[in-house]
Amino acid sequence: MSAAGEPTTPTPLGVAMIGYAFMGKAHSQAWRNVAAYFDVPAVEQRVLVGRDAEQVAQAAARFGWAEAATDWHEVIARDDVHIVDICAPGSLHAEIAVAALEAGKHVLVEKPLANSLAESERMVAAARSAREHGVQSMVGFNYRRVPALAYARRLIADGRLGTIRQVRASYLQDWLADESAPMTWRLRKETAGSGALGDIASHAIDQIQFLLGDTVTDVSGRLHTFVGRRPGDGGLENVTVDDAAWATLSLSGGALASVEVSRVALGRKNSLQIEVYGSRGALTFDLERLNELQFLDGAAPDAEQGFRRIVVTEPDHPYAGAWWPPGHVIGWEHTFTHQIQDFLICIRDGTAPSPSFEEGLQVQRVLAAIEQSDAAKSVRL
Amino acid sequence: MSAAGEPTTPTPLGVAMIGYAFMGKAHSQAWRNVAAYFDVPAVEQRVLVGRDAEQVAQAAARFGWAEAATDWHEVIARDDVHIVDICAPGSLHAEIAVAALEAGKHVLVEKPLANSLAESERMVAAARSAREHGVQSMVGFNYRRVPALAYARRLIADGRLGTIRQVRASYLQDWLADESAPMTWRLRKETAGSGALGDIASHAIDQIQFLLGDTVTDVSGRLHTFVGRRPGDGGLENVTVDDAAWATLSLSGGALASVEVSRVALGRKNSLQIEVYGSRGALTFDLERLNELQFLDGAAPDAEQGFRRIVVTEPDHPYAGAWWPPGHVIGWEHTFTHQIQDFLICIRDGTAPSPSFEEGLQVQRVLAAIEQSDAAKSVRL
Amino acid sequence: MSAAGEPTTPTPLGVAMIGYAFMGKAHSQAWRNVAAYFDVPAVEQRVLVGRDAEQVAQAAARFGWAEAATDWHEVIARDDVHIVDICAPGSLHAEIAVAALEAGKHVLVEKPLANSLAESERMVAAARSAREHGVQSMVGFNYRRVPALAYARRLIADGRLGTIRQVRASYLQDWLADESAPMTWRLRKETAGSGALGDIASHAIDQIQFLLGDTVTDVSGRLHTFVGRRPGDGGLENVTVDDAAWATLSLSGGALASVEVSRVALGRKNSLQIEVYGSRGALTFDLERLNELQFLDGAAPDAEQGFRRIVVTEPDHPYAGAWWPPGHVIGWEHTFTHQIQDFLICIRDGTAPSPSFEEGLQVQRVLAAIEQSDAAKSVRL
Amino acid sequence: MSAAGEPTTPTPLGVAMIGYAFMGKAHSQAWRNVAAYFDVPAVEQRVLVGRDAEQVAQAAARFGWAEAATDWHEVIARDDVHIVDICAPGSLHAEIAVAALEAGKHVLVEKPLANSLAESERMVAAARSAREHGVQSMVGFNYRRVPALAYARRLIADGRLGTIRQVRASYLQDWLADESAPMTWRLRKETAGSGALGDIASHAIDQIQFLLGDTVTDVSGRLHTFVGRRPGDGGLENVTVDDAAWATLSLSGGALASVEVSRVALGRKNSLQIEVYGSRGALTFDLERLNELQFLDGAAPDAEQGFRRIVVTEPDHPYAGAWWPPGHVIGWEHTFTHQIQDFLICIRDGTAPSPSFEEGLQVQRVLAAIEQSDAAKSVRL
Repeated sequence: MSAAGEPTTPTPLGVAMIGYAFMGKAHSQAWRNVAAYFDVPAVEQRVLVGRDAEQVAQAAARFGWAEAATDWHEVIARDDVHIVDICAPGSLHAEIAVAALEAGKHVLVEKPLANSLAESERMVAAARSAREHGVQSMVGFNYRRVPALAYARRLIADGRLGTIRQVRASYLQDWLADESAPMTWRLRKETAGSGALGDIASHAIDQIQFLLGDTVTDVSGRLHTFVGRRPGDGGLENVTVDDAAWATLSLSGGALASVEVSRVALGRKNSLQIEVYGSRGALTFDLERLNELQFLDGAAPDAEQGFRRIVVTEPDHPYAGAWWPPGHVIGWEHTFTHQIQDFLICIRDGTAPSPSFEEGLQVQRVLAAIEQSDAAKSVRL
Repeated sequence: MSAAGEPTTPTPLGVAMIGYAFMGKAHSQAWRNVAAYFDVPAVEQRVLVGRDAEQVAQAAARFGWAEAATDWHEVIARDDVHIVDICAPGSLHAEIAVAALEAGKHVLVEKPLANSLAESERMVAAARSAREHGVQSMVGFNYRRVPALAYARRLIADGRLGTIRQVRASYLQDWLADESAPMTWRLRKETAGSGALGDIASHAIDQIQFLLGDTVTDVSGRLHTFVGRRPGDGGLENVTVDDAAWATLSLSGGALASVEVSRVALGRKNSLQIEVYGSRGALTFDLERLNELQFLDGAAPDAEQGFRRIVVTEPDHPYAGAWWPPGHVIGWEHTFTHQIQDFLICIRDGTAPSPSFEEGLQVQRVLAAIEQSDAAKSVRL
Repeated sequence: MSAAGEPTTPTPLGVAMIGYAFMGKAHSQAWRNVAAYFDVPAVEQRVLVGRDAEQVAQAAARFGWAEAATDWHEVIARDDVHIVDICAPGSLHAEIAVAALEAGKHVLVEKPLANSLAESERMVAAARSAREHGVQSMVGFNYRRVPALAYARRLIADGRLGTIRQVRASYLQDWLADESAPMTWRLRKETAGSGALGDIASHAIDQIQFLLGDTVTDVSGRLHTFVGRRPGDGGLENVTVDDAAWATLSLSGGALASVEVSRVALGRKNSLQIEVYGSRGALTFDLERLNELQFLDGAAPDAEQGFRRIVVTEPDHPYAGAWWPPGHVIGWEHTFTHQIQDFLICIRDGTAPSPSFEEGLQVQRVLAAIEQSDAAKSVRL
Repeated sequence: MSAAGEPTTPTPLGVAMIGYAFMGKAHSQAWRNVAAYFDVPAVEQRVLVGRDAEQVAQAAARFGWAEAATDWHEVIARDDVHIVDICAPGSLHAEIAVAALEAGKHVLVEKPLANSLAESERMVAAARSAREHGVQSMVGFNYRRVPALAYARRLIADGRLGTIRQVRASYLQDWLADESAPMTWRLRKETAGSGALGDIASHAIDQIQFLLGDTVTDVSGRLHTFVGRRPGDGGLENVTVDDAAWATLSLSGGALASVEVSRVALGRKNSLQIEVYGSRGALTFDLERLNELQFLDGAAPDAEQGFRRIVVTEPDHPYAGAWWPPGHVIGWEHTFTHQIQDFLICIRDGTAPSPSFEEGLQVQRVLAAIEQSDAAKSVRL
């Protein structure tokens, strides 16, 4: 605390990150680069934590972390660690996050918040308590920080689309299209919780709520597994999670959204597509072309209406001014850079980051309701 | 009957058409032009039938019909009429079609087959009896005759997509996006049967079954009306049909299909979009670019895979050889020209055209099941 | 002449067409259908003229012509023929057109106007004389009648693009990409005049002048033949026309345009692409998607600018209201239908159609200057 | 030298960079991140050099340089500096590069190589001498390191396009479209050398030669300035460089290429577009969608041909395996990261990097020939 009773941000803020696989690589990138583009409190990549001492040491060297460690309990107790960034598997989120928050560390946790509603609720409780003491927390729905989607939200909030009626969101990948792709922990319910639903429908659902500034109130859905058995170490094993999921969602403001996700949609690599139709405008987006937003302004005369391709790299676009001149596109990784920036600004200013753990829990509740709904019988012809 | 007992096709075949609005204009175009491009039995546009004597006479003159008439009963009794093309409102389909078939006339009827399952079943019965006597019948799902979609069906039938898993079909329009658009008979359940569901989801569902050569076995769906009241002659009236509909469909071969249709999707004029994902290939289509098909061949090496834009105007493409050199695109109207061609060839050859009335009835059953499913409760959060 | 001394249009106008190959098929379509969509003076397809009596009779039957004939001299002398539509090879244009005009017949001639400047000038002289007597003439640059391009011209004329600076036009085809494609009369200078230059650059150049309402004042260009020898009846023969051509054109209003055309651009079937950049707006077009125009309005705030895809099927778009509801696209063939409509309206009203023979001659002069420029040496490194 | 007489790479390699504006920011990014993704010799960002002591110190802190300095002469003399990266204005390239090479430092210089042919030739001479002593040099045509373009080169080299005939390259920007944009040093011939020609046509020309593995032999071109006067400090000043340039280029292997560049093409932000047409295949690319390559395989049956959109993020694609899973796109900045990687590998292996100073000089010669050609008269109508 400063003399005036205001919290002061330690300088530099020490960061510990837990996990160094795909998400660890992406988050490291963000920590390493954020200060070159944005005016944020000084940070230091202090320590990277993982189970395998040798591998975590190598990863730390490669990704720019000063130290490596294997025991996260020790690390979150260190005085020179002020922020804990959790990229560990979902089953560990709750334990680490609660402990870190109780130790007074700001926490960023990858999505989904946790593998169960019960764990998620514990995390929300810990986040609420910590927040009262100026300790911040955030869940990593990084696609909120795609400039095109942040700009889309602004257009919607400014009323440029009028009343939102219909939203179409799909997230299609194909890394399970090949039926000889092997069994992994991601395809077992006990370790992964669910399949495409938790992994990518979570992104789609968070994004719908983010764009509309609204909340899902009821759902109806369906899950399906196309490839029921895959080769494991000892022969074919049963896949116990979904390959694809479908849902329709009602939002409290009156909009209806459809969600379709798949990991067997051959030819779609990482295609989160979103369409929003309102009474006065519409927009569409595809993550494979993440620097672009298609916007239709219904206020134009009929003869002049059309979806316009906005290259979201202008100084006035969210985040874009920090980068390169217009038309010089940025990559997927910088959704994380923007996320870190926003997180650091909140820490500096003592404000609550969004998406909060509460928002992460709300997404989990929608996912659970879809699974519950799937049990309902469809109508046979 | 010829001496040999084979039916001979009268030359020329006399055609009567009932109805002269949007579909009448489109069908007239097909009758007027089919013989300039395809080798079909000779036909004559004998008589156009409508209620208003003056208007039907004008339409007949404009659209190339030799005569106009107001009483369809008389027309279907004429010896010089061999084909009856029904473009009248859906509520009249059953009565006219059954009478014409019983009079020994070949019948083409616009989709949907009828407004009720009971009527549809009566029409199927009449079509079956007539077929035994060499009298043919067909329902006008004209999008089966888009060259790109006929070619897509061929690729699927040839196994180029492997096992079909996931199909995404949407049909989006926006002519009801404006909430001041007035009340019409199309927005009342008693006259229209349903809204976007019967009008455009019927196309999407027929197309899914056509492309896959498969049949829907169960459905789960949802209907919604975004603009509940619209200005009528005497003030605001209640809209009693859906503006939009959503469904997931199981097919007997194991595929799952999603369908989403809307008449309030601002910026989408006539956008029937279809995506098909199989184990070895994928394809996408948009009716607003109906000369194009996007095809991904999963047999190519990973580094070379991608959706390729095929301009479906090559001599080897279905129907395309009859038209212009490659790259010279055709319009929406010629789905009807192709339909007439196929219908005439079936009449000449004494074979049963497809889609048959049975196929039309099957689509009606899917629509009915979606409405039934909508009554089921969704899960509230 | 009417009592008031005004010419009256004979009813119906009798049409004779000379030639029945590709263009004859396309023009026949237009004559057969124009009155079903547009309010034009009544016309009758009286007689089709060709050299081979049997073939022309078959074509006449197929394409809707009442009679067939082999001697165009006799046909243009007939009292019941009021319009002569010339689809014969370019080397015959001048002789037929001049004779027809002198016989008091309105003349529509396919592009290019003629194979030589001398012939073109004779035709212009005949057209001028005839025009004084109310006899009209027109050259068939049909792409002026693409709704999207007619709308583009309107946007430019209305100042929506500001001062036009840069135009990029390309017309790419690939029917000569295969080097085993055989020798034809189209590949010999003595019969074809030139290659891609006269065949397709003529379209691009007319379109540039049409869109801008401006005139080319100087040019600099280059021609090239990639496949110099092709298989003929008696072995390999020399190709004596260009496969591709490039030019830059100055326009009197200050704009600069580039033109690139090719018949060996593999994968491009019939791709006339046009981009126009002005001080306040821009637009792009591709003939393979002829129902679409991309428009960028530079008056919008930077963050909202982007090329918008306008589907040019709205009632307010040129020609579009005559066809189908919005989003129901038309085909390449109706550029001819629109051309005939405009021609008939001019005949009825006694006004001069555009593009006139003078405009056709101006395009020929630009082509000749490009050939002349090609003789100039480029700079060797 | 090692005991065996082989050069050993110092560890870590110390880097000095001169210049810290746009290119300095982009190069810093590459130095800061390269080792996190690629296996390269260890490097250290030792010192950043600029004229303004305060600003260079701030830039050094922000971009990750250990020190800042204002005198490049001193810096290139330092023993702990092994690499000099020159991002200073083009007029300084020759002096710094020659001095650094003579001091035994490896040199990377931004494009264009220099502002004059004489300077470029001096640099080439210095590079040749240095190369004999294992001192490497490279010019920064970073677009050679776009994965899609490196992959395009591979497809061409593998013969997948057959004989290349026609290349179309354009580089369109719009930052000078507004005629009230102010006068700068970039718009004066004495400081900038040329306008769009040297700035962006240089990229297009290098890319053509890179993709085809071929050399331009003769050129014919045109330059134009659309906005001749712009507001300067003391009123309107004359713009003395080109706003746009056009050229056709012959390549020694028989291909012809067109180049069009502009800084007034409203709506185009950073659009380098390239099309390559060969006898057996074709491809297209747009820098605004730099993760995509469109490829047409002419070996497929006609009915299956089409440009396929390859998302160039597969492990087998050049550079792509180092980044993220397929479909997770990278940004413009990593063309520099790849460039640094290739440069470091060459330093480590003692091989000559490409593009060499000789290749940079060749591009300068093409640009000079275009300017010379522009003096030739076009043909007036």
